[in-house]
Amino acid sequence: MRFVDLIEKKADGFSLSKEEIEFMVNGFVDGSIPDYQMSAMMMAILQKDMNDQETADLTMAMMYSGETVDLSDLPGVKLDKHSTGGVGDTTTLVVAPLVAACGGTVAKMSGRGLGHTGGTLDKLESIPGTSVEIPLQRFKDIVRQCGVAVIGQSKDLDPADKKMYALRDVTATVRSIPLIASSIMSKKLASGADGIVLDVKTGTGAFMRTVEEARRLARTMVSIGTLTGRKVTALITDMNQPLGNAVGNALEVKEAVELLSGKISEADPLYEVCMLLGTHMLLMAGIANSSEQAQAMLKEKITDGSGLKRLQQMIALQGGDASYLCVEQMERLTSVRKVIDLPALQDGYVTSMMAEKIGTAAQILGAGRAVKSDVIDPAVGLVMKVRVGDQVRAGDPICTLYVNDDTHLEEAKKLLYEAVTISDTKQKGNPMIHEVITAENL
Amino acid sequence: MRFVDLIEKKADGFSLSKEEIEFMVNGFVDGSIPDYQMSAMMMAILQKDMNDQETADLTMAMMYSGETVDLSDLPGVKLDKHSTGGVGDTTTLVVAPLVAACGGTVAKMSGRGLGHTGGTLDKLESIPGTSVEIPLQRFKDIVRQCGVAVIGQSKDLDPADKKMYALRDVTATVRSIPLIASSIMSKKLASGADGIVLDVKTGTGAFMRTVEEARRLARTMVSIGTLTGRKVTALITDMNQPLGNAVGNALEVKEAVELLSGKISEADPLYEVCMLLGTHMLLMAGIANSSEQAQAMLKEKITDGSGLKRLQQMIALQGGDASYLCVEQMERLTSVRKVIDLPALQDGYVTSMMAEKIGTAAQILGAGRAVKSDVIDPAVGLVMKVRVGDQVRAGDPICTLYVNDDTHLEEAKKLLYEAVTISDTKQKGNPMIHEVITAENL
Repeated sequence: MRFVDLIEKKADGFSLSKEEIEFMVNGFVDGSIPDYQMSAMMMAILQKDMNDQETADLTMAMMYSGETVDLSDLPGVKLDKHSTGGVGDTTTLVVAPLVAACGGTVAKMSGRGLGHTGGTLDKLESIPGTSVEIPLQRFKDIVRQCGVAVIGQSKDLDPADKKMYALRDVTATVRSIPLIASSIMSKKLASGADGIVLDVKTGTGAFMRTVEEARRLARTMVSIGTLTGRKVTALITDMNQPLGNAVGNALEVKEAVELLSGKISEADPLYEVCMLLGTHMLLMAGIANSSEQAQAMLKEKITDGSGLKRLQQMIALQGGDASYLCVEQMERLTSVRKVIDLPALQDGYVTSMMAEKIGTAAQILGAGRAVKSDVIDPAVGLVMKVRVGDQVRAGDPICTLYVNDDTHLEEAKKLLYEAVTISDTKQKGNPMIHEVITAENL
Repeated sequence: MRFVDLIEKKADGFSLSKEEIEFMVNGFVDGSIPDYQMSAMMMAILQKDMNDQETADLTMAMMYSGETVDLSDLPGVKLDKHSTGGVGDTTTLVVAPLVAACGGTVAKMSGRGLGHTGGTLDKLESIPGTSVEIPLQRFKDIVRQCGVAVIGQSKDLDPADKKMYALRDVTATVRSIPLIASSIMSKKLASGADGIVLDVKTGTGAFMRTVEEARRLARTMVSIGTLTGRKVTALITDMNQPLGNAVGNALEVKEAVELLSGKISEADPLYEVCMLLGTHMLLMAGIANSSEQAQAMLKEKITDGSGLKRLQQMIALQGGDASYLCVEQMERLTSVRKVIDLPALQDGYVTSMMAEKIGTAAQILGAGRAVKSDVIDPAVGLVMKVRVGDQVRAGDPICTLYVNDDTHLEEAKKLLYEAVTISDTKQKGNPMIHEVITAENL
C-alpha cells in the first residue's frame, strides 16, 4: 500500500477502507507517513468528506493508537459527557455529581487545552488541594466510593489525535466534521465510557456557527457510537450568549455550587442544559425510564442536597478541601484585588451578547490560556448581569469584573462593550436547546 | 500574513492575490513555509482550482524564484516549443532546424527528467560528442550563427518548480491544471522565449487522458501567455498511439533525419504535427503571414535539404559529430546486439496501440529512465511497424526491437503484445490534431 495512492483516492472523492485508514493512522503515528503527506490527506478529507463508516474506522484506529482504559470492573453503565466548548459552561460540575447521586457511574477523563477559561480540570484545581492527576486504580476506587470522579487524560491516550490535531491547526483543516468527530470520539472511547452524552454548541461563541453544522457534527458522533457499540446521545445547544453567567474558574465552581444548592432558577439556561444532560445520562444507564422520571430524580438530588454532597465527597477523595464547596465559603476563592461593575452606557434592551468576545475578555484578565504555558489565575473572571432580551438603564451593571492584574483591564472592558449590544427594540433570544439526537432518531 | 489563513482562503474556494501568491512561493523556496503547509495548499488548489489571473501570478512568482535568461540581444522573436510528453515525439529535432532555416530564432532550453525515452537532451547526446551543457554566451553565439541551439536548463532556473514538483509527486497533487500549467510556463518564461508553441498531448499515452482536460490545460497556458505578455499557441494532438514510429534515442534522431531528408510521407502523423508546430512558430515570428505560406516555406526547407543542414550545423557547433546526421550514417548509431521482429499473433486489423505501454517497453529495454540515476543506452528501443487501422496477417512484424541487454526482453515483448490489439473489424484511428488554441480564439 502506498500512501500517495490513498491520498489520490480520497482526493477523487472515494471512500477509504478500514485497512487503508488503519495504515494511515498507524503510519502517521510511527512516522513512516510524513507530515506533508498527512496534511494533503487531511485537506482532501476536508474537501471530499468521509462517510459514517470511514469516520467510525478512523475513530477506532485513533483510539487504538495509544493506551485504552478498561473500566469494565466498575458497576453499571460507565457514563461520560463532553461539551464541544463554550463560554460559561460549568455543566460537568453540576451534572456529574447529580447523576452519581441518582446511582449513575460517572468516570470522566477530561483533556486540558486552550480556551477562554480553563477546562473542567482547571476549575477543579481552583479548589485548593484538588488533584486531577490520579492513577487509574485510585480513580476507579473513588468512582466506586462516590459514583463519580473527574481526572485528566493519560498522556499516552490517543497519540494519533495529538499529532493530527497539531497538524490540522497549521494547515486550515481543523473544521472538517469527520476529523472533529473522530478527534472527540476517539478520546472518549479510549477513556472507557460505555455511554456518552455530548453537548454540541452552536452560535457565535461556538466552533459550529450554524445549527446545520452542529447537527452534522452531532449526527456523525452519534453514528460513530452506533458503529462502535457505544451509546451516544447529542444535544445541540445555543452558544450565542454564555451558558452560565460566570466566566472564570472559581467563579464557575461557585455558580455550580449555587445550582446544586437550589439557588438558581429552573428557568436559567445553565439549569435547563444541566437537566437535559443529566436526563439523557440517566436514560442511557437505565436508571430512569422516561425523561419526566429522570428530571424528577435530578431535581430531588438538588432539593435534598445530595448532589452537592457528592461533589464535596469527590473533591475530598481527590485531595481537595471540600469545606469551600458551599455558597458562603466559595466567596473566599473568588476574592480578588478589584471587583468592578461595568455600567450600561445607554437605556434599552440587550439584543446580543457575543459569547466569544466575553470569553476573550475573561481570558485576558487571566482566567484562560492563549498559549499552553500561560498560568491561570483561578479567582479572576467576570459575571454577566444581563441576558439577551433584558431591559437595562444607562448605569445599570451589565457585568461584574473580578480582577487581580489590571494590565489588560481596559482591553477587557472594550471587548465587553463590543460584545453586549443594547438597542431600542426588544429582541427574543434563541431557544437554549435546538435539538436532541439519539441513535434512535439519527 | 499567516500562511494558514491563505490555505483556509483557498480551501474555501476564494482567489489568492498576487501578493499572497508571491508570499507563498517565496516562503516555500526560502523554507519559512514548511512542506506540510504547502502540501495542504496544493491539495486545496487541486480541489478548488485557480483562475487565470492566479495561475499567471503563480507562474511569474515561480519564474522569479531563480535565475532568468535574457535573450533580448538575439535578433527577432525568440521562439520555443514544448511538448507535454508523449511517446515517439521527436518533433523538436525536426521543427527547430526547419524554423531556423526559414529565418526564425530558436533558442531552446530543455529539462531532463524521467520518461519512456530520454528527453530531447538525451536524443541529442546520442550523437557522439554533442554537448547540451553550454554556457549562456556560447549558446547565444550558436543561435546567432545558425538560428538554433538546444541546451539543458540551468540548475538555478525555477527552484520553486523543483521543490513544488517533488512535493506534488508524493501528495497526489500532480494533476492540478493550474499547477501543471505554471510548472511548464514558469520554466519557459524563465528561459527567455517571447513566443512559445505548445503541443498538449491527449489520449491513453498522455497525462491528459481526455480532450477536455487537454483543452483546459492548453487554454490555461495560452492565458498565462496573454497575462504575462508572451505569444503562446497550443496544439492539442493525439497520443492514443505513438506519434512517430521510432521509440528510443538514436532511433528517434534517425527518424527526424529521415523526415528532414524527405523520406517520410506528408500523410505521416509525425510529419503532420511537425508542420503544424512549425507553421505556428513562423506565424508567431511574423516570418509567414498565413498557414499556407508557412507550410510552403517549411516544405521547401525539407526539399532543398536546408533544414537537415541546420541540424547538422547546430550539432557541429554543440561539439557533436555531424557526419552521422544523414540517413545512411545513422545506422551506425542504432547498431545493437540483437534486432528482433515481433510477429502479429493473428490476422486482423490493429484497433488500438497503447502508447504508454509501448513507451514502457522501450524504457525497460534501456531507452528511458525509471529513476534519475538510470543510465540510458542511446542505441536501443523499438520501431513500430503498424498503426491503428492497419491490416495485418499472423506472422507480419508489428514492431522491431533493438536490444543490447536482453534481461527484460520477455517483459518488453509482453507489454507490446498487450499494447497492440488486433481484431476482426477495422476501426478508424483518432484524428491527429484535435484543436489549435491561440490567444485570439481563447
